[in-house]
Amino acid sequence: MTPSSQAAEVPAETDGTLGQIGEFGLIRRVATGRSQPAVTLVGPGDDAAVVAAPDGRVVASTDVLVETVHFRLDWSTPEQVGRRAAAANLADIAAMGAVPTALLVGVACPASTPVATLTALADGLWAEASTVGAGVVGGDVASAAQLMVSVTALGSLEGRAPVCRSGAQPGDLVAVRGRLGWAAAGLAVLQRGFRSPAVVVNAHRVPEPPYAAGPEAANAGATAMIDVSDGLLADLGHVARASTVRIDIRSATLEVPARLADVGAALGADPRHWLLTGGDDHALAATFPRGSLLPFGWVRVGTVLAADDAGPAVLVDGRVYEGGPGGWDHFAR
Amino acid sequence: MTPSSQAAEVPAETDGTLGQIGEFGLIRRVATGRSQPAVTLVGPGDDAAVVAAPDGRVVASTDVLVETVHFRLDWSTPEQVGRRAAAANLADIAAMGAVPTALLVGVACPASTPVATLTALADGLWAEASTVGAGVVGGDVASAAQLMVSVTALGSLEGRAPVCRSGAQPGDLVAVRGRLGWAAAGLAVLQRGFRSPAVVVNAHRVPEPPYAAGPEAANAGATAMIDVSDGLLADLGHVARASTVRIDIRSATLEVPARLADVGAALGADPRHWLLTGGDDHALAATFPRGSLLPFGWVRVGTVLAADDAGPAVLVDGRVYEGGPGGWDHFAR
Repeated sequence: MTPSSQAAEVPAETDGTLGQIGEFGLIRRVATGRSQPAVTLVGPGDDAAVVAAPDGRVVASTDVLVETVHFRLDWSTPEQVGRRAAAANLADIAAMGAVPTALLVGVACPASTPVATLTALADGLWAEASTVGAGVVGGDVASAAQLMVSVTALGSLEGRAPVCRSGAQPGDLVAVRGRLGWAAAGLAVLQRGFRSPAVVVNAHRVPEPPYAAGPEAANAGATAMIDVSDGLLADLGHVARASTVRIDIRSATLEVPARLADVGAALGADPRHWLLTGGDDHALAATFPRGSLLPFGWVRVGTVLAADDAGPAVLVDGRVYEGGPGGWDHFAR
Repeated sequence: MTPSSQAAEVPAETDGTLGQIGEFGLIRRVATGRSQPAVTLVGPGDDAAVVAAPDGRVVASTDVLVETVHFRLDWSTPEQVGRRAAAANLADIAAMGAVPTALLVGVACPASTPVATLTALADGLWAEASTVGAGVVGGDVASAAQLMVSVTALGSLEGRAPVCRSGAQPGDLVAVRGRLGWAAAGLAVLQRGFRSPAVVVNAHRVPEPPYAAGPEAANAGATAMIDVSDGLLADLGHVARASTVRIDIRSATLEVPARLADVGAALGADPRHWLLTGGDDHALAATFPRGSLLPFGWVRVGTVLAADDAGPAVLVDGRVYEGGPGGWDHFAR
């Protein structure tokens, strides 16, 4: 046997299936060679990780993504799925006014899943976590009929008070930072069988949440905050209910980007509906005391009103939005 | 319509399916009315939870359990599945020498899943978390073909150094606290179609990890620790590799409980094999400096030796165990 034929028999790093290399083989491949940030005190490979929580508190959030429900591997690469799974959770941390510190990842998938798919998924998780200085510190993998990714993000408030959904007061102004409707437009494009324009399709594949805007809003005195994962009206509905207020959005403040207008015209859809009800861009929406100087990049889009007899609600130009609250409930009909 | 017929149309708390009450309906039902411990600073219902981390560090671990792979709803009640999912994670926290503070839970399941199944699962998670003073502080639910539960546990080291797998030194003694082989015996009983003796079947359904023994071992100077989830030999193998040592188990120190001897006789199985290779009891195994006074309840079972040319290994009475390392790799053949 020649050296070259020997080499050909050694599977490359990404060859084969999970069933061939096993649970521990996979964990070794996705965990080794990663550079952990300073907040990771004990990284993967032990019973548990240890992460710094400098101000004596840790922020924590979990999201589950399921193949065919939240993503399709013919529409997104596994790396894009990893980035998106990380982004959804990191945005939740930002929406509390915190800075992400770590991710933990539970994966369930068939034994026939290619190792390359799972290492690309891990690469995506790492890539997105790295943009905010966080590490992937732990995880688990189990066999299942369907690919499922459950991500837990941890974060640090750096001494700030958490910005909850329940703090909005009548008179507060409502502001948004980040993209609205882009991921929804991208999904609509994919659902019609198209693959372009790339800028909206990629917005669906990999959201770009304005992570730093969360702590900035907290520092600027935000009274309530949420990340827009279910749609602006649906997520402001969570704020309205938690704060027992009404929120009135002024539709004229929601400018329709030219790209979305183009896509809407091409598909015969109203792009304004995407802005009001499209989720998955993970913009941040927050309320600030009247007269606040908004931090960089935030756009005022509405006002907080006292709840009336009809209870908490979100209105558009003073009226119930005719397109319905929209948003995403995985099990609602 | 009479009041009583009206009442009959209002679904009871646990009636119906997840598809009927929706994601937010379920979250409301499982989150309301729970009493959070003092370490929960912000509980469920916001973008993220906030949990106290008094010494400026947080311990975190994630485990995934999948229906038909890790549990069967005809062998365990949903509440037992919840207890077991919590226990597997809480034991990982204890194995670092930490005290659990919180759980986050990602659930994926079919829309047809009865609400009663999911509320019972949540009850089980809460019941087990409560035994150690931890709360369930967050979660997510998504639709999937198969029931899957991903649990993340957080914990506090209370100022102690984490006890990692990598700290075992030649000359250390090896000790175990908690049950070995009981869950494996219970699983063997269920696999043969029996439902008794209840004491071993219940050990499979709901493990009883010695949570407090983790911090006690850390305080007593444990140099390495792990929870026995894959089997004593397999898990000590992790310690041996991480510490680059050999571990020699003296089999005579592993007393076979009369109950396991009975079950072994009835099934024609060697109960000693369950003690050495059975996982899921979540006993704790640790190494201590030679001459240590072991804390209450720990039993010395072996010795740490320097690695030889063959590298790290776990031996039984000086020899490779003929039954194989056993243990559980979800994808290994």
